[in-house]
Amino acid sequence: MNNALANPNVDLSDLAIKAGLADYSPVRGCMVIKPYGYAIWELIQKELDARIKECGHENAYFPLFIPQSFINKEEDHIEGFAPECAVVTHAGGEKLEEPLVVRPTSETIIYHMFSKWIQSWRDLPYSVNQWANVVRWEMRTRMFLRTTEFLWQEGHTAHESAENADREARRMLDVYYDFMSKVLALAPLVGEKTDSERFAGAHKTYSLEVLLRDGKILQAGTSHHLGQGFAKAFDIQFQNKNNELEYVHLTSWGVSTRLIGAIILGHQDDKGLILPPNVAPIQAIIIPIYKNEEQKEKVHSNCQAIQNELKVLGIRSKVDFNDQITPGAKFNEWELKGVPVRIHVGPRDVDNNVVEIVRRDTLSKIKDITRLGLGEKINALLIEIQNSLYQRNLNWREENTHEVDSFDEINKVLDKKGGFLKVHWCGSQEHESKIKEQTKATIRIKPFEKIDGGGKCIVSGAPSKTRVFIGRAY
Amino acid sequence: MNNALANPNVDLSDLAIKAGLADYSPVRGCMVIKPYGYAIWELIQKELDARIKECGHENAYFPLFIPQSFINKEEDHIEGFAPECAVVTHAGGEKLEEPLVVRPTSETIIYHMFSKWIQSWRDLPYSVNQWANVVRWEMRTRMFLRTTEFLWQEGHTAHESAENADREARRMLDVYYDFMSKVLALAPLVGEKTDSERFAGAHKTYSLEVLLRDGKILQAGTSHHLGQGFAKAFDIQFQNKNNELEYVHLTSWGVSTRLIGAIILGHQDDKGLILPPNVAPIQAIIIPIYKNEEQKEKVHSNCQAIQNELKVLGIRSKVDFNDQITPGAKFNEWELKGVPVRIHVGPRDVDNNVVEIVRRDTLSKIKDITRLGLGEKINALLIEIQNSLYQRNLNWREENTHEVDSFDEINKVLDKKGGFLKVHWCGSQEHESKIKEQTKATIRIKPFEKIDGGGKCIVSGAPSKTRVFIGRAY
Repeated sequence: MNNALANPNVDLSDLAIKAGLADYSPVRGCMVIKPYGYAIWELIQKELDARIKECGHENAYFPLFIPQSFINKEEDHIEGFAPECAVVTHAGGEKLEEPLVVRPTSETIIYHMFSKWIQSWRDLPYSVNQWANVVRWEMRTRMFLRTTEFLWQEGHTAHESAENADREARRMLDVYYDFMSKVLALAPLVGEKTDSERFAGAHKTYSLEVLLRDGKILQAGTSHHLGQGFAKAFDIQFQNKNNELEYVHLTSWGVSTRLIGAIILGHQDDKGLILPPNVAPIQAIIIPIYKNEEQKEKVHSNCQAIQNELKVLGIRSKVDFNDQITPGAKFNEWELKGVPVRIHVGPRDVDNNVVEIVRRDTLSKIKDITRLGLGEKINALLIEIQNSLYQRNLNWREENTHEVDSFDEINKVLDKKGGFLKVHWCGSQEHESKIKEQTKATIRIKPFEKIDGGGKCIVSGAPSKTRVFIGRAY
Repeated sequence: MNNALANPNVDLSDLAIKAGLADYSPVRGCMVIKPYGYAIWELIQKELDARIKECGHENAYFPLFIPQSFINKEEDHIEGFAPECAVVTHAGGEKLEEPLVVRPTSETIIYHMFSKWIQSWRDLPYSVNQWANVVRWEMRTRMFLRTTEFLWQEGHTAHESAENADREARRMLDVYYDFMSKVLALAPLVGEKTDSERFAGAHKTYSLEVLLRDGKILQAGTSHHLGQGFAKAFDIQFQNKNNELEYVHLTSWGVSTRLIGAIILGHQDDKGLILPPNVAPIQAIIIPIYKNEEQKEKVHSNCQAIQNELKVLGIRSKVDFNDQITPGAKFNEWELKGVPVRIHVGPRDVDNNVVEIVRRDTLSKIKDITRLGLGEKINALLIEIQNSLYQRNLNWREENTHEVDSFDEINKVLDKKGGFLKVHWCGSQEHESKIKEQTKATIRIKPFEKIDGGGKCIVSGAPSKTRVFIGRAY
């Protein structure tokens, strides 16, 4: 594996637009997700939704609008979200009595409903999941990574005890890891956020952090153990087995269209996207190559036959029949779009009953693959590419994770390579801020198991119980 | 078939809440769609999305917010939608330079993008579909039928000619009919809207109108041939085969969560919902019946075995293990919730290797059905129920469609029976208004083929080329 940084200066928006995933919209900070990009989101939804339902969480839908007063009910929450809210002040031609906030997240309105629906310990655990759009008025936006409006799922659960809530938050973190590793071919680092990086209103925030090909880190998903703060603010009480009233313990967890940003920047190379087969809208693109009309007819019908064969096996494929551009231009275009497997069919291939195959991830070419059992061969190749991309992302993270014990070293290493640095930290927020100010790196996670216990804080030299993972993030 | 009106005074919101489909929200005119209701929407989406994709239309996503100036670009459109808009005036703590409208429908922003994407006749037909939430500030709201926020799909296509656009609008009308009849078991009347009932900005509006059990009519979906009005307002031009610039011809078409209202009111009886099997989240509910712990164990494990057997056949089923209420209470609850088939399992049934089955649509009970091949029997029954509900809705419409030739007769018939009246109308908007004012009925559709040509207008006696369908609508 190549340890040099790939495309350190890639422009994500530029790449997303060229590859046909998205386009700029006339609304500040909002993008248009074009069919090729949205098809990736649909595959993400299908895979993740099935996993969420397996956990027993059902989907529901709550209003887009939240009364302003609701947002203000949980102290930490208002502090975190008020500055980012878009506010509806007028509707139906009149000024509203109470302004409505366009949901930046739905804890407040969902927990208002929970307080109506939850009465007894028999109702617990209680859960819902919602696929929805949310709006956060961000200052600097970037396609897929941080847009004013984005699409996501947010799950919410209520429990009898803190232990049960924490177990659920950790379970959903595991579900996200399973999904990201098997479907997105990403190997995020998982752990807990520091107090200053927690979700506004959470007791604990767990996070999945992906190391991208440019050496930067992306928070790809979070799962929060919310404690009882929201339960108290929204009066969600239940009668326990001893007939006493208690507040529930809540969790919430979400991932968004940011995952598409993680896929793009987690796998791309200098030719463009590399889509993992499990989320590739087109897994195999079939390209006819011919010089005259006679060849064209023969080649086209052969390509169509191949596609039919792949379709039967459930492989998402397409023949590029466009006769306005050359095969070479098509190779470049489908490489840019990240299609995992390219199948070239020329007149000689038809005569010899073979095809030529090119892997997008390695760009390696295999000539003269016999047609017999081609579908199974493509299927096997897609699985191999999927696994190989995951392994590559895992290796990338491991090769770019370094122990650093001197403060000055942080900038040196990060400027050169990016990646994760394992540093000792004593737990002081002041020292955490100093790291951020002087290195632009943040503490991405505290590991679940102590690493190298009994060291000295990289900032102050004070006693440290574990190393934490720092890095520069999007 | 009973020709009397079923439940003329049913309160839809009351029914939806009792059946667990939805709940009131703290936001004016917005409801919460609960898991049981949302599961119906998911089944609708799955079935309809597949049909839309079969037509070659891919999904995309456009911003929730639309600049106010966009809405104002198409004259008829602004007139229709401006009074219903919710407007974001502040965001990120500041007043916006230009207010943003929360989309009431997305023609304007989608066609703005079309003008960037469409260049040549080679790009046509061009199409996208979007599943999204929209907001219309309605004065009087009603769960599922008319809510401030609702969920829908909106498809948009661009064509070279008016003929092609009209053909597409008609094709999507057919797709909706196919979907509603086969999946929702509804038999809507289809036809064209009058000028005064057209979509704001459309050249022609085609509609599907369902006759509900209460005798009222519901517009369940529409498909618009938009002509070139929006294309001119948003400058969507293409180079034709003669290298001349032309404006495209557009269509748009949509159905919404209102379909759930159509399902409820189209099929219900005085015991509650009757869900067509193809959109029933639970198709078969299995109810254990026992008197003591020994029986309970035996019965429960038998119920579980039945569920496993049904699951293998893809039947959505559930065992109601709740031991807090009696079997009788469960029968009532699942009748209210409209589950198509109930399976009763008592200790004697277990011993005799049989079950008892109750159909929700007819409430008929069949005892002692042998367990051998139960899954196939349930499957066959579900198909029968699905077909029978469609036939019932079709008969209902046919039996409640009457020719009326005297203006005074309109109120008499509608007061008594509701339904569709076929009346002669000369085409004058003034006479159309008179019908509405004096009978509360509106012209629901003009039929595609003239009916009974050469009559006299029911209002004025002027020459009429065809009968039209009028009725009182939600």
